Amino acid sequence: MPNDMSNTPKPSIFKRRESDARSYCRGFDTTFVKATGSEMTDANGDTYIDFLAGCSSLNYGHNDPDMKAALVEHITRDGMTHGLDMHTDAKGDFLRAFEQHILKPRGMDHKVMFTGPTGANAVEAAMKMARKATGRTNIISFTNGFHGVTMGALSATGNGYHRGGAGLPVGGHVTRMPFDGYMGEGCDTSKFLEAMLGDASSGMDAPAAILFETVQGEGGLNAASAEWVKKVCDLAHEHGALVIVDDVQAGCGRTGTFFSFEEMGITPDIITMAKSLSGYGLPMALTLVRPQHDVFGPAEHNGTFRGNNHAFVTAQVAIEKFWSDSAFQDSLATKALVLTTGLQELADKIDGAYLKGRGLMQGVDVGSGALAGEICARAFQKGLVIETSGPNDEVVKVLAPLTTPEETFRKGLSILLDAADEVLEQHKIAAE
Amino acid sequence: MPNDMSNTPKPSIFKRRESDARSYCRGFDTTFVKATGSEMTDANGDTYIDFLAGCSSLNYGHNDPDMKAALVEHITRDGMTHGLDMHTDAKGDFLRAFEQHILKPRGMDHKVMFTGPTGANAVEAAMKMARKATGRTNIISFTNGFHGVTMGALSATGNGYHRGGAGLPVGGHVTRMPFDGYMGEGCDTSKFLEAMLGDASSGMDAPAAILFETVQGEGGLNAASAEWVKKVCDLAHEHGALVIVDDVQAGCGRTGTFFSFEEMGITPDIITMAKSLSGYGLPMALTLVRPQHDVFGPAEHNGTFRGNNHAFVTAQVAIEKFWSDSAFQDSLATKALVLTTGLQELADKIDGAYLKGRGLMQGVDVGSGALAGEICARAFQKGLVIETSGPNDEVVKVLAPLTTPEETFRKGLSILLDAADEVLEQHKIAAE
Amino acid sequence: MPNDMSNTPKPSIFKRRESDARSYCRGFDTTFVKATGSEMTDANGDTYIDFLAGCSSLNYGHNDPDMKAALVEHITRDGMTHGLDMHTDAKGDFLRAFEQHILKPRGMDHKVMFTGPTGANAVEAAMKMARKATGRTNIISFTNGFHGVTMGALSATGNGYHRGGAGLPVGGHVTRMPFDGYMGEGCDTSKFLEAMLGDASSGMDAPAAILFETVQGEGGLNAASAEWVKKVCDLAHEHGALVIVDDVQAGCGRTGTFFSFEEMGITPDIITMAKSLSGYGLPMALTLVRPQHDVFGPAEHNGTFRGNNHAFVTAQVAIEKFWSDSAFQDSLATKALVLTTGLQELADKIDGAYLKGRGLMQGVDVGSGALAGEICARAFQKGLVIETSGPNDEVVKVLAPLTTPEETFRKGLSILLDAADEVLEQHKIAAE
Amino acid sequence: MPNDMSNTPKPSIFKRRESDARSYCRGFDTTFVKATGSEMTDANGDTYIDFLAGCSSLNYGHNDPDMKAALVEHITRDGMTHGLDMHTDAKGDFLRAFEQHILKPRGMDHKVMFTGPTGANAVEAAMKMARKATGRTNIISFTNGFHGVTMGALSATGNGYHRGGAGLPVGGHVTRMPFDGYMGEGCDTSKFLEAMLGDASSGMDAPAAILFETVQGEGGLNAASAEWVKKVCDLAHEHGALVIVDDVQAGCGRTGTFFSFEEMGITPDIITMAKSLSGYGLPMALTLVRPQHDVFGPAEHNGTFRGNNHAFVTAQVAIEKFWSDSAFQDSLATKALVLTTGLQELADKIDGAYLKGRGLMQGVDVGSGALAGEICARAFQKGLVIETSGPNDEVVKVLAPLTTPEETFRKGLSILLDAADEVLEQHKIAAE
Repeated sequence: MPNDMSNTPKPSIFKRRESDARSYCRGFDTTFVKATGSEMTDANGDTYIDFLAGCSSLNYGHNDPDMKAALVEHITRDGMTHGLDMHTDAKGDFLRAFEQHILKPRGMDHKVMFTGPTGANAVEAAMKMARKATGRTNIISFTNGFHGVTMGALSATGNGYHRGGAGLPVGGHVTRMPFDGYMGEGCDTSKFLEAMLGDASSGMDAPAAILFETVQGEGGLNAASAEWVKKVCDLAHEHGALVIVDDVQAGCGRTGTFFSFEEMGITPDIITMAKSLSGYGLPMALTLVRPQHDVFGPAEHNGTFRGNNHAFVTAQVAIEKFWSDSAFQDSLATKALVLTTGLQELADKIDGAYLKGRGLMQGVDVGSGALAGEICARAFQKGLVIETSGPNDEVVKVLAPLTTPEETFRKGLSILLDAADEVLEQHKIAAE
Repeated sequence: MPNDMSNTPKPSIFKRRESDARSYCRGFDTTFVKATGSEMTDANGDTYIDFLAGCSSLNYGHNDPDMKAALVEHITRDGMTHGLDMHTDAKGDFLRAFEQHILKPRGMDHKVMFTGPTGANAVEAAMKMARKATGRTNIISFTNGFHGVTMGALSATGNGYHRGGAGLPVGGHVTRMPFDGYMGEGCDTSKFLEAMLGDASSGMDAPAAILFETVQGEGGLNAASAEWVKKVCDLAHEHGALVIVDDVQAGCGRTGTFFSFEEMGITPDIITMAKSLSGYGLPMALTLVRPQHDVFGPAEHNGTFRGNNHAFVTAQVAIEKFWSDSAFQDSLATKALVLTTGLQELADKIDGAYLKGRGLMQGVDVGSGALAGEICARAFQKGLVIETSGPNDEVVKVLAPLTTPEETFRKGLSILLDAADEVLEQHKIAAE
Repeated sequence: MPNDMSNTPKPSIFKRRESDARSYCRGFDTTFVKATGSEMTDANGDTYIDFLAGCSSLNYGHNDPDMKAALVEHITRDGMTHGLDMHTDAKGDFLRAFEQHILKPRGMDHKVMFTGPTGANAVEAAMKMARKATGRTNIISFTNGFHGVTMGALSATGNGYHRGGAGLPVGGHVTRMPFDGYMGEGCDTSKFLEAMLGDASSGMDAPAAILFETVQGEGGLNAASAEWVKKVCDLAHEHGALVIVDDVQAGCGRTGTFFSFEEMGITPDIITMAKSLSGYGLPMALTLVRPQHDVFGPAEHNGTFRGNNHAFVTAQVAIEKFWSDSAFQDSLATKALVLTTGLQELADKIDGAYLKGRGLMQGVDVGSGALAGEICARAFQKGLVIETSGPNDEVVKVLAPLTTPEETFRKGLSILLDAADEVLEQHKIAAE
Repeated sequence: MPNDMSNTPKPSIFKRRESDARSYCRGFDTTFVKATGSEMTDANGDTYIDFLAGCSSLNYGHNDPDMKAALVEHITRDGMTHGLDMHTDAKGDFLRAFEQHILKPRGMDHKVMFTGPTGANAVEAAMKMARKATGRTNIISFTNGFHGVTMGALSATGNGYHRGGAGLPVGGHVTRMPFDGYMGEGCDTSKFLEAMLGDASSGMDAPAAILFETVQGEGGLNAASAEWVKKVCDLAHEHGALVIVDDVQAGCGRTGTFFSFEEMGITPDIITMAKSLSGYGLPMALTLVRPQHDVFGPAEHNGTFRGNNHAFVTAQVAIEKFWSDSAFQDSLATKALVLTTGLQELADKIDGAYLKGRGLMQGVDVGSGALAGEICARAFQKGLVIETSGPNDEVVKVLAPLTTPEETFRKGLSILLDAADEVLEQHKIAAE
C-alpha cells in the first residue's frame, strides 16, 4: 500500500475530464491503487473483499503471483507486446496450452479466432460468421440476454437502457424469443421456438444462428436448464441454424466447469470467450468455431489488438495452473455449496426473495432494485465490493474470484448478511 | 534472443488451431519472439526493421524502456490491472497528463470516454453518441474510409471485402460521400456534399454527424487538404451535424502533430483514438467529446475492459515523455522529409507511380496491388516488415515507428529500394 | 353470355406476355367474361358458383345492379373519374354516407384517410402514421398475419414465401408475437406479450403500435377471441402503443358485422379497409384514424389514385343499401349457421379435420395442403370457385359473397362436399 | 352540369371527416362534379382548364368518349369487374393490344406483371424483383427522384418531407447518386457513379439495380440527357446491375413518345407504368420485365386489385386509339413547341427564370416556391388548374392532357401568363 499519498489522484480529475458514461466508479466511490487475490486496496489504505471480480473477468483473483511472474519475465526480456495477428512465441504457447488442456480433453475440434480483445467483438465476429456461413441473416436471441453494446452485439442484447443508447432502432435481423423460465413454471418456452421454426408463416425468417448464454449474467442470473439448452440446440440444427453460446461471463470456470455448457450434452458451433480468458484481467477475446463454419477469409474480420501478447502469456499460465488437472474444478463445487448456503440465508431474511443462478454465479432476487441497491451500497461501506443485476437491478449478484479462500469467502458473505440486516432494520424503523 | 529453440512454437499449431481469418502472419511467415524500438526478432534470431509499427500502434517503437520500467514497477507492486471503469491511481494519473499536455495546450474542453479498448469500439461509441445527441440517425462517411468491422463501424467503412464479411447488407443509416480528391483534380467534392445538404429533396437525410479520417490509412493514404476539411466541418455545423474525426490511425503524432487535424483550424466535436494511445501497444481506446455532446448516461455504453490500467501506466509515460515539450514533434518534420525523399526515389523507378499521404504516413502508389505486394514480400525477405494499403493494395505504405533512429530509417528505406529494384529487374527479364 | 367467341382471348397471350407471378389463373384455368351476384361465366359459357369472392373483395357479389346503375349514370353524365385528392361530389357523398351509417352509429370519431387504393397501401399509411404519432419505430405483429407485400406491410406479414420475394431481409422494426391460440389450448399467448411489454430488458423495444387481424384470412382463418383482443388492446394502451386493426379482409360484414371487432368492446386507434369497401370490386382503400393520431401533413403520404370516384359512387350505394338498417346484418347470422353446418359435414368426413374461422369467413383444416388443394381443384371442375389458405394451404376456405342466395349457397356447399367425397374415394382406392 | 345543387356536398364534410393528409383540395378549394377532355366543372358551374391532368394520369383527357363508350358497354353487359389475377377477356384484349401496338413495334420482349394498381406498387415490385434476380440488395437511386411513399419506394424517393412521414429512418439498401445536371454544367455526374462502381472500397455495395426517371416530375422537371442515360445504363450492365426506368409519370406519351426513353438507345430491364396507363384515370399499374429477370413465383408479389377489368377495357381503347399509328405521337411534337414558346414567354418575365423539362412535361423555374405558388393560385382564380414541383416547389409545371386542343392549350397558357403578370405587378407595387 502506498504511504506517499501525494501521487494519488485528486478525485476532481474524473469529474472534470471523464465522460458521464462512467459508472462503477459512482457506486464504489474511491480510488483503488492495488489488489491481490480477492482483495482490493484504495488510496486511503482501506481494503475491500471483491465479490464482483471485474464482472467475472478476474476468476483467478487479482494479480495472480504465477501469472505476474511470467508477465514480468516476458516484459523484462523484451518479449513481443503488440503483434497484430502475427505468429509469436507467446501466441503459439497459449494455443498449445488451450488445445492440450481445454479443447482436446473435451473432444472439441474448434478453430480459435483471435478477435478484437472484448466480448462484444467476439460476439460481433460470431454473428457475422454465422450469417456468412449460412447465407441467412436472422439471429435468434433471448429475453434478458446481454451480448455487448456495439451495434451488432447490441441488436442481440435485451436491455432497453443499452439499446436506447444507440440513438437509432437496433432491432434489425434479430428475433427475440423467451428464455428458459421466462413464462414461469409449467411453460416450456422452447415449444414456442419450436412452433415458430416449424411454421413457414410464423414471420420468423430462417435463422443463421441461435445465440444464448447458459446463465444470463447481466439479465439477472437466469440459469437455463440442461434440457432446455439441449432442446434449443437440437432445434437449431434441425432447422439449419448454428448454435452460438456466449460464454463471455459464464465461461472460464464460473459455473463450475471451464465452459458453462459442459454438462449439457451439446457442442456449440461457435463459442465466444473474453473476460477471464487472459486470467489476469488483460483484454483478450476469442471466438471458437467448428472448422466447417470457419468461413472468414484473411483479415475479413480484423482489428489492431488481436495480438495482445501480454494476455497470451498470462492466459497460458491460467490454463496450465488451473485446468491441467481436476483439482481446481473440484474446489468449485465445494465453494458453490458455501455460496448457496450463504445466499439462502440472505433470501430467508426477505419476503419473497429467492436464489438464482448456478455454480459461482449465484445471487438473490430481493424483489426490488431499490432494496438490492441499498444492500450493495451498505456492503461497500462495510468493505465488500458487490453489484446488482437483472432488468430492474433486483438481484444481488455474487461474482467472487473462483480462487477466493474459503475464509475470505465466508467473511464476504458475512458482510453481505450484516449489510442486509442493517438495511432491513432501517426499513422496519422507517415503516414504524 | 532465445538460444533454446525447444520452446519456440511448432508452426503447425497456427494452421491447426487458428482461424483462417488470420492474415499478417501469412505475409510475414515467421514467429516473432522479441522486439525493441524499430526492430523485431524472430525465433531464428533474425532481426527485421519494422516499417509497419503495428499499423501505427507502435508510434514510439516496441517496448520503450521508460514505459517498460513503469509497467514492471506497477505490476511488481500489485498495482491495479483490471478496474472495470472504477477510479484508480493509474487512470487518474493518465487523465491528468492527458489534460495537461494534450488537451489544455490545444484549448480543448473535451471529456474523455474510456470505451472498450479498440478503435472500432471508440467509433461505435462516437456514432451512437452523435445519434443520441442530435436525435438524427444518418451519418455521413466517405469513400475509402476505414473505421472498423463491428457492425456500427462497418457501416461507415468503405472496403467491400470487410463489408462482405457481415453476411448481411451493412449500408443502413450511413450516406457515402466522395473524399477529397476522389474525383480527381479540379473537382471539389465538398461541393457535392454542400449541394446534397442544402437540398431538401436530395434523399440525404439530415446527418447526425460527418465522420472522416484526415488521412485515410487503410484506404490508400489519401490525405485531405486543410481547406477541404475546414469546409466539411463548416458544412456539418451549418447543418446541425457533429464532426467526428477518426484519429485512430493518423493520431498520436503520425502526421507530425499529436492530432492529425491540429493545423487545419477545426475543433472536432468527437475524436476517436486508439492504436498508439497506450504507447506500448497495449489495448486502449478513447472517445473524446465536447461536454455538450457527452450524452451517455452511466454505463449506457459499457464494456469490461475499459479500465486497462497497464495501458494507463504506459500511456501516461508516453504523453509525458514525448508531448510535454516540442522536441519530439520537431523531430517528426525532419523525418517526414527523409521519408518523402526516399519514397520519391522509389516512385521515380516506376512508371506512373506517385507519392501519397502526409507526415510519417506516406507511401507510393505503384499502380497495381500485385507489384506492391511483390515489393513488400521481397523487402520482408531482406529484413523489412512493410505492408500495402489502398482499395487494390496498390500503395506501398510506410508506417515506421516515429522514434526510429535516422540511420535505421535510412536503412529501411534502402532495403525497400533494393527490393523494388530486384522486383522490377525480374519483371524486365520476364518481359524480354 | 357471348355467343361470338372470336373476341375471346387465345390463352397463349397470358403465357406469352404475363409475368410468372400470375397465380389464381393457374388454379382456375379458364377465361372469365361476365359475372353477376355469386356466379361467374367463362368464355365457354360455363358458369361457376363463386366461393372466393375476390378474396372477400366482392362481399356484395359481382356487379350489384344498384351499384351498376349508379356507376353507369355517373359515367354517362361525365362525372369525375380521376380526382387526385380533390373534393368531388362523389367523394363528399361517400363520406357523408360513411359518417351517417357507419361511423356515427358506432360512436366513432375517426378521420378518413384516402390512401392509394390497395390494402397494402392502407397498411403502409397506418404503420407510418403510428410511428410518426408515437415517435417510436417498433410495431408488433403476429404469427401468420398477412398485411400486404410492399416493403412496410411485408415486414409485418408472416408468410415466408412472400417475405422471400423481397430479396432482402424484411424483419426490421417489427416484433413478432404469437397470435391467439398459436400455442394451443391452455396457453394464453397474451401473457407472453404482457411479459415482454412489462420487462425493460426483454429486447422488445417500446411499440408504436400493435397490428393485427381479428380473423387471419390468409393465415388460415385463425379467429382471435374477444377476450384476447380486448387484452391485447388494453396492453397496447397501457404501454403507450396504438391499436391498428387490419380489417381489409375481415371487414365490410365478412364476420357478421361491418367491422370485425364490433362485438369485442374495443375502439382501435387505426383501422385499415380495402377489398369490399367499394362494394363493386373497384380499387379503393381507407385508413381510419382517431383525430389525435391524424398526424400526416398535407400530401405527406400521397399517391395518384386516392380519388377513384367510380369507387366512391359504388361505395356510397353499398353503404346505403346494406348498412342503413339491420336487415343485411341480420341475414348474415343465418347464413353463417348454414356455412357452419355445411363445413362441419365436410370436417366429419376427414380424420382430424376441424372448423376454423368466424361468421362468413370459415373453413376446414383438412390436415394437409395437398388434400385441400385436391378438393378445391375437384370443386372447380364441378363448377365451384374456392381456395385454400393457411401456412401450408391446409385450410379449405369459404369466402362466398355475403349476398349469396341461400339456395346458391347450399348448392355451392353441396358441390364442395361432393368434391371432397370424390377425392377421398380416390385416396381410398389408391391406398388399397 | 347539375342544376339541382341540393345534392352537392357541404364543404364541411371534408374538414369534418377527411384526414389532414388531404392536399390538392386545399389549393383547388372547390368541389368538382364533372369533366370532359381538358376541362373540369365544379359544383358552382364554373369550368377550369386542366393543366395538371391528374399529375399526368389523364394524358388523354377526362372521360374520353371512346373509352367511356367501351366502359359503359362492358359494365352494362355485366363484364367482369374484379378478377383478382384470373384470366378475363378484358385482360387478354388489353395484353394483345399492348403487345401489338407497344411492345412489338419497339422490339421489346418484356413480360407484363400486373401489380397492385398504383405506381408505388409497380416500383415496389420492380425493386424486389431486381433484388431477387441479382441476389444483391443495394439499389442506386438519384437526387430529387420520386418513386412513391410506401416503405420500399420511399427509400428510393429523395423528398425529405415524404421521407419524414415514415417515422423511422428510410435510407436502407439504397445509395443516392447525383442526377444528371445536379452539380451544374461542366460536371458529368455519371463519372462519380462510374468511380464509385469501379472502386471496391467506395462503400457502395454492388447494386441490384439503378433506378431512375428520365424526367423527374416531382423533383422539378429535371430532364436527363440521352448521353447521360445511356452511360448510366451501360455502367449498370457492366457492373451486373439491372436498369429500372420509372416511367410512371413520364410514360404514356408525356415526353413525346410512348416510353420516355425511346430515343435514348437503351432497353431497360424493368419499366414501371401507372398513371395514364388505363387512359381513363382508373387505377392500374404494370411492371414490365425482361423474361430472364421475371423471377417471382406465383403470387410471390400479390395483391387484390391487380385485375381491375374496367381499367383493362379503357386501356385497350387508349392504346388502339392513340398508339396504333403515328398520328398522335406526331401531334405531340407540335404541342410541345407551343408549350415551349408559351413557357419561354413566362420565363422572360421573371429575372433568372428558366425552362425545365421535355416534351409535354415542361415548366419554368421561377426561383422561389412562394412566387410559383402565387402564380398557380392566381391562375386557379382565373380558371386554370396548375401546380408547382421541385424541392422547394419553385417550378411552375404544365402537365396538360396530351389531347388538349390547340386553342384550349393556348387559352390555358394565356391565363398562366396573365396570372404571372398580375402577381408580378402586385410584387412591384409592394416593393415600391
